[in-house]
Amino acid sequence: MTHVDYAERMARASRAAVDAGLAGLVVTPGPDLVHLCGYQPATTERLTALVLVPGSTPRLLVPILERPDAQAALGTAATEVSGWPDGSDPYLTLAELLPPGGRFGVSDNAWAMHLLGLQRTLPDTTYSALSEALPMLRAVKDAFEVERLAAAGAAADACFEKITEVRFAGRREREIAADLHALLLENGHSQVDFTIVGSGPNGANPHHEAADRIIEDGDMVVLDFGGLMDGYGSDTTRTVHVGDPTPEERKVHSVVRDAQQAAFDAVRPGAACQDIDRVARAVITEAGYGEYFIHRTGHGIGVTTHEPPYLVEGEHLPLVPGMCFSVEPGIYLPGRFGVRIEDIVTCTETGGRRLNNSDRGLRIVA
Amino acid sequence: MTHVDYAERMARASRAAVDAGLAGLVVTPGPDLVHLCGYQPATTERLTALVLVPGSTPRLLVPILERPDAQAALGTAATEVSGWPDGSDPYLTLAELLPPGGRFGVSDNAWAMHLLGLQRTLPDTTYSALSEALPMLRAVKDAFEVERLAAAGAAADACFEKITEVRFAGRREREIAADLHALLLENGHSQVDFTIVGSGPNGANPHHEAADRIIEDGDMVVLDFGGLMDGYGSDTTRTVHVGDPTPEERKVHSVVRDAQQAAFDAVRPGAACQDIDRVARAVITEAGYGEYFIHRTGHGIGVTTHEPPYLVEGEHLPLVPGMCFSVEPGIYLPGRFGVRIEDIVTCTETGGRRLNNSDRGLRIVA
Repeated sequence: MTHVDYAERMARASRAAVDAGLAGLVVTPGPDLVHLCGYQPATTERLTALVLVPGSTPRLLVPILERPDAQAALGTAATEVSGWPDGSDPYLTLAELLPPGGRFGVSDNAWAMHLLGLQRTLPDTTYSALSEALPMLRAVKDAFEVERLAAAGAAADACFEKITEVRFAGRREREIAADLHALLLENGHSQVDFTIVGSGPNGANPHHEAADRIIEDGDMVVLDFGGLMDGYGSDTTRTVHVGDPTPEERKVHSVVRDAQQAAFDAVRPGAACQDIDRVARAVITEAGYGEYFIHRTGHGIGVTTHEPPYLVEGEHLPLVPGMCFSVEPGIYLPGRFGVRIEDIVTCTETGGRRLNNSDRGLRIVA
Repeated sequence: MTHVDYAERMARASRAAVDAGLAGLVVTPGPDLVHLCGYQPATTERLTALVLVPGSTPRLLVPILERPDAQAALGTAATEVSGWPDGSDPYLTLAELLPPGGRFGVSDNAWAMHLLGLQRTLPDTTYSALSEALPMLRAVKDAFEVERLAAAGAAADACFEKITEVRFAGRREREIAADLHALLLENGHSQVDFTIVGSGPNGANPHHEAADRIIEDGDMVVLDFGGLMDGYGSDTTRTVHVGDPTPEERKVHSVVRDAQQAAFDAVRPGAACQDIDRVARAVITEAGYGEYFIHRTGHGIGVTTHEPPYLVEGEHLPLVPGMCFSVEPGIYLPGRFGVRIEDIVTCTETGGRRLNNSDRGLRIVA
């Protein structure tokens, strides 16, 4: 990525804004700002905003003491950087960069305080969350990005192979989580975002992280881990078993695996996001476990691990080649155990391509 | 802190809302939620909100898969926890918990996406940022909190003493930053938020972090470091010199020290926040360096390192016993060097009390 690539991304975003009937975009620190101009300041109470108004030079407004860092960022060469000093009203300064009326897209994660400041200062403007107004802004990845995600996925696969070699029985969930953390770093990740180890009944809570529970022989263990590698995310889940599984455990795992496969097979350009969710849900419901699949089937991934497109009932957005997202059905039996299988998948012209390829069978660990 | 303490905090916040003419508060993940109910989920696109409506039981709305964690949090016993499932509209569910009209306080850092969802669903409601509507909500600390901050400050003091014993000349800024990071953890911090090492010209950029520059004999070096200890923040700055300082370097350091002392001496109940800023600025301006003091004098600190009260021109809020904030004037000479001296100070009935007590003189390092 050079500053020319970033300039092109900003130009593309401006064109998309026009097509969506927006007067412009207000982009605040976080994944949108990183994507558009490679600038990643801390998110604070001091306003930082990139303003894209079609037909105008991109403008980046920052706290004056951040100006040197903003100007030094890789993708800000095509922007005009201005600073506002402490004690001044940054919303007045920002308002000067915007047309006084119209609808603007604003970063999903912009602080409410900043949005309220803008709404107060420019009462004739209205706002839409960027992921609703321009869901495609970051959802369709170019080849460079898909390969970054594929590399992060391959690193996660290598971690899974290694973790199945360690001892589970008699160790605490936190210890396995620490092993996963170290493995992600060893395998090239710069940042670890989550290392879920849900053993036995803890696996039935999909967002359980890792606790002091000592893993026992006979436990199902959900392993869901990921982070950032070269700026792009990994997020993979496999469910392993300590010792011999019961017939019921095998069955539940097999149903989830079938659901994940069916959802993957349904990935193709033009399929609606909710269709992928429905396919996975149908398999699980037919097997009698529908009420135990208590979350959406997937979420987009890129410079963050949760972003559009969301594979969820009600999301009619069609899949487009280059979209990258998780496919992660699960079954959660309260007080007993859980099973989830998750891959990152990209939509290609001809169907899905998995970016995780480690064994999806019920791996037995010691 | 027990669940009774948290219930009392929520009750106090509700009373403050009434006094401020608000119909209620909408509190999202981050420092407000931690403060009010001890619950600290990840901040994501899935809506989590604590709703405080005077006269009603506190309600905590969470993604359904987070409900077990929410119910297990220390301070949520006094709340009624409900979950919304993926695929439903969480703003409709949230709207049912709010009166259909009136003005609400909303967490500064609530996602714009969530605020827009509420504004769309309840068009007769209006919103104010919590730090504007109820600037005192977290600004006045109780004795428990002041002692936590004092303990974090003492740990930071110990780190400063240790860092002055290491070799600076010939080492990279990043190496000193890594030393500071390790020292903070060794001294009881659970999290390190920043380790600024600004040597020579890099010190003239107040938010420079730490780079590959090799520190040389004759450099001024700004050291600004902090993080969280037992849930409360530390944030201290000292400026050291490698070898003998020039008369000008001594003078600039002395001016900043005098400004910091004068600002500290001005702390007393009833003084306006902006007065403390003015006192520090006057000392620096009289010495001829006014244009090189390019930021506010301070910010509040508590469960975050930046929160109200802000010591900045235009902030008329009066100091109240229990407020805790940084006092951190600086002089930044572009291309040459910078000096900043920062303590955390609490306002008592009789004046200021410093929570950092390490040497404020121009310490010479090797």
